[in-house]
Amino acid sequence: MKTAASYPVSGRGPADHEVRDQIVAAATEHFSRYGYEKTTVSDLAKAIGFSKAYIYKFFESKQAIGEMICANCLHQIETDVRAAVEQAGLPPEKLRRMFKVSTEASLRLFFRDRKLYDIAASAATEHWQSVQAYEARVQKLLQDVLQEGRQSGEFERKTPLDETATAIYLVMRPYLNPLLLQYSLDTTDVAPTQLANLVLRSLSP
Amino acid sequence: MKTAASYPVSGRGPADHEVRDQIVAAATEHFSRYGYEKTTVSDLAKAIGFSKAYIYKFFESKQAIGEMICANCLHQIETDVRAAVEQAGLPPEKLRRMFKVSTEASLRLFFRDRKLYDIAASAATEHWQSVQAYEARVQKLLQDVLQEGRQSGEFERKTPLDETATAIYLVMRPYLNPLLLQYSLDTTDVAPTQLANLVLRSLSP
Repeated sequence: MKTAASYPVSGRGPADHEVRDQIVAAATEHFSRYGYEKTTVSDLAKAIGFSKAYIYKFFESKQAIGEMICANCLHQIETDVRAAVEQAGLPPEKLRRMFKVSTEASLRLFFRDRKLYDIAASAATEHWQSVQAYEARVQKLLQDVLQEGRQSGEFERKTPLDETATAIYLVMRPYLNPLLLQYSLDTTDVAPTQLANLVLRSLSP
Repeated sequence: MKTAASYPVSGRGPADHEVRDQIVAAATEHFSRYGYEKTTVSDLAKAIGFSKAYIYKFFESKQAIGEMICANCLHQIETDVRAAVEQAGLPPEKLRRMFKVSTEASLRLFFRDRKLYDIAASAATEHWQSVQAYEARVQKLLQDVLQEGRQSGEFERKTPLDETATAIYLVMRPYLNPLLLQYSLDTTDVAPTQLANLVLRSLSP
């Protein structure tokens, strides 16, 4: 964590977090145009008009910038999914929404204009920390919904909760993970509903 | 179809189908060593010791050779799956075997030594006819098992059969399709069982 004292005095330049945000915004723009894999920190520095050394003051590597962009992107997907789940009334509907909205949000962020796909693919291939944390949070959300449905008597309680949650996450995964999602693009309109229906049948008491 | 008359008279050389088999065997060997994508028909001709023109007498393109290799490979997977399904007693066990054996056979053929992965990947990416036919046959086998379980009263009958079969196939697909399977290698030991269990819960009457 930064302490207040480490921020520059007002008038002497932008605060560190502002510079970081500025680098991330410029990098997002640059990567989305030229691709993450093909861009070096030097290219990026030139494009933003900063020195390479200055960028390295704020990020230790290109991946660190990519991680930040990826984390922002995953945060947006998660926000959409949580909002949809909260708006839904009962646990079965929550589960339906999870399937639907997570697929839609992933498609939008990873594939519209192929913008961030390159970063998302590296993140998923190399098991970036931000991805692992995101997957863990989605699994937790899924467990919470299942738990709620068990308590209300809408979902069966014979199967261990862990087992149910793991299996359902495996069913969701091809629509959450960008590497898998790219090969399911022709079924993303119907698959989330069909799979949610199958999963709900498997949960009936 | 070839007519008998189109085969060369005995003693004047090998029959067409023998030459075709010889080309396919040599190509399988060559592709598995140098990769399908990177090899041209010229490379292949040189390696086998045939002229390029001679190969083109039997196969109209590199893809036609690849299709034959791919078809052989898919045929082997399908044979394994059918044998496992036939050996199983009751429909629930048949379904479990389908999940398990199709994953194992796909892993073995597509990934052991990465031998045929390159061809399988092209086949899946470009929707080769052999792949489409294979997928249709696996779906039909799945429907037959479901139908049998409905008749014996082990599987529920409320959901339209088509809907059930399509959804279950979507659950299986990441473990059948080599493009998807490459990103699930760390879960292939447990996923087929966990998913089969989930699917069986969804089928309970």
